[in-house]
Amino acid sequence: MGRWPENVQIKEVGPRDGLQNEKARVATADKVHWINMLSESGVKEIEYSSFVHPKWVPALSDAHDVGKRIKRHPNVSYSALVPNMKGLELALETGIDGASVFMSASETHNRKNINKSIDESFPVLQEVIEEAKKAGKHVTGYVSTVFDCPYEGRITPEQVVRVCDKLFAFGVDDVSLGDTIGTAVPSQVEQLLDVVLSRYPQESIIMHFHDTRGMAIANIMTSMEYGITRFDSSIGGLGGCPYAPGAAGNVATNDVLYLLHGLGINTGISERKLQEAALFIQNKLGKTLPSKTLASAASQS
Amino acid sequence: MGRWPENVQIKEVGPRDGLQNEKARVATADKVHWINMLSESGVKEIEYSSFVHPKWVPALSDAHDVGKRIKRHPNVSYSALVPNMKGLELALETGIDGASVFMSASETHNRKNINKSIDESFPVLQEVIEEAKKAGKHVTGYVSTVFDCPYEGRITPEQVVRVCDKLFAFGVDDVSLGDTIGTAVPSQVEQLLDVVLSRYPQESIIMHFHDTRGMAIANIMTSMEYGITRFDSSIGGLGGCPYAPGAAGNVATNDVLYLLHGLGINTGISERKLQEAALFIQNKLGKTLPSKTLASAASQS
Repeated sequence: MGRWPENVQIKEVGPRDGLQNEKARVATADKVHWINMLSESGVKEIEYSSFVHPKWVPALSDAHDVGKRIKRHPNVSYSALVPNMKGLELALETGIDGASVFMSASETHNRKNINKSIDESFPVLQEVIEEAKKAGKHVTGYVSTVFDCPYEGRITPEQVVRVCDKLFAFGVDDVSLGDTIGTAVPSQVEQLLDVVLSRYPQESIIMHFHDTRGMAIANIMTSMEYGITRFDSSIGGLGGCPYAPGAAGNVATNDVLYLLHGLGINTGISERKLQEAALFIQNKLGKTLPSKTLASAASQS
Repeated sequence: MGRWPENVQIKEVGPRDGLQNEKARVATADKVHWINMLSESGVKEIEYSSFVHPKWVPALSDAHDVGKRIKRHPNVSYSALVPNMKGLELALETGIDGASVFMSASETHNRKNINKSIDESFPVLQEVIEEAKKAGKHVTGYVSTVFDCPYEGRITPEQVVRVCDKLFAFGVDDVSLGDTIGTAVPSQVEQLLDVVLSRYPQESIIMHFHDTRGMAIANIMTSMEYGITRFDSSIGGLGGCPYAPGAAGNVATNDVLYLLHGLGINTGISERKLQEAALFIQNKLGKTLPSKTLASAASQS
């Protein structure tokens, strides 16, 4: 207890994981303005969009435009989600520092999400990962439903490392382990990290929590007790949960910063600038974002 | 890590701390029906109302009626907030198993809240505590703003134990330490409990967290790592924050149960029955309660 890391690195995934789960559309010019605000906040990684086919994620169909128009801050690494070679080509043409590939630790969730079995997904990802590495890009592998699957229930750590082993063998730099439906409690985080950290170095593990049941901050605490120092989060808690309409999605960057800075951990991110960016997108979406820290700060300012 | 208590006891404070911060009024008959639902949920302590003068807490002006009409479950301890001898008399006449007195660890918050300095408050509380003990009642001392005060900022553990020492000397059975404005992070909980638990037994300490910035679940985890097994919470997260309109108040009992049961800790409370009671009061208030677990469960059922 009380032994927190000195520095923690946040990847802001609001423009991708957040917006893809929001019903309201945001104009491209507003996205660009907003991502530029995020770039000025001190955050060092931003996932700016997804090159998944627009049929699947219409909210991000302007990925190419967004990527071309955002102002690239020299201290920020910009990444995008790429599902296949076509997506990677578009992302490379648009401009990325990093490519994120994705699959699920759950067979059924993987099939529902990308229409392939886990084994059928591997060769596709292998090609994308190798090509992205050849292009000199950082590659992150998102592994979803690492704790629970909405179709299969509990997922074992062994199912998770089976997928991670392959992704690392294909050449990813790191993996981001996702509590996609936000069901995990800290004991599940411990069980997974016991297995994962006996196998891979801490620096190669990113934790990606959704706050669907309000457990994300506690899960981040537990992860830090295991030495994890990299987390994905979404500004304002942007993005709902596709499996529970009205429920919260990604953990809010604002709440994560409140925790980290309160514990004396350095992130390099300005809470004030992040709050301004959250209020900007909240206004564009015309709905109150779920971050409690944001609601609290906004009502007092 | 991972060494959680076997049992945790929750005091449901929604009917008092929750409702007193809600703008909408709930009819007495609805309160009675709702408290009866809570009594059937397995919860062992319910604070059913406050005998503070109705001028200060108009939402609870029917405390006497509520107390007379609720069905007393043999396994539940019913308590009420009492500010002074007049309040205690009314509470005793109405029927209580326990009386809760209250004051603040912050001089300014105490003055703003009860129009007296801390030292002026002591004799009033002493008389109430002694009288309640003479009547054979359990007495809890609420100490508010134990981490931060909206007027004074940071409160030291020494300020907190100064108040607790007096309350224990007057005869309270336990104290409930309140993060009244929901600003604490786990390192503050550690700092306070380091001092508090070097002085008083664990069983006499209740932690009372507000979730204004989404830190409450993490703070409960940290408290449990210190051996604390008693927490106050409010069904659905009922009750706002008077210092930040629109922001969250008490930690939601539903979220606490999700955490505790997920960790394998026994509470004796049925999540389903608690959810039904939360949906009942949500409907009466005509607003969505902040509990994420409730939102998630409600959207799926």
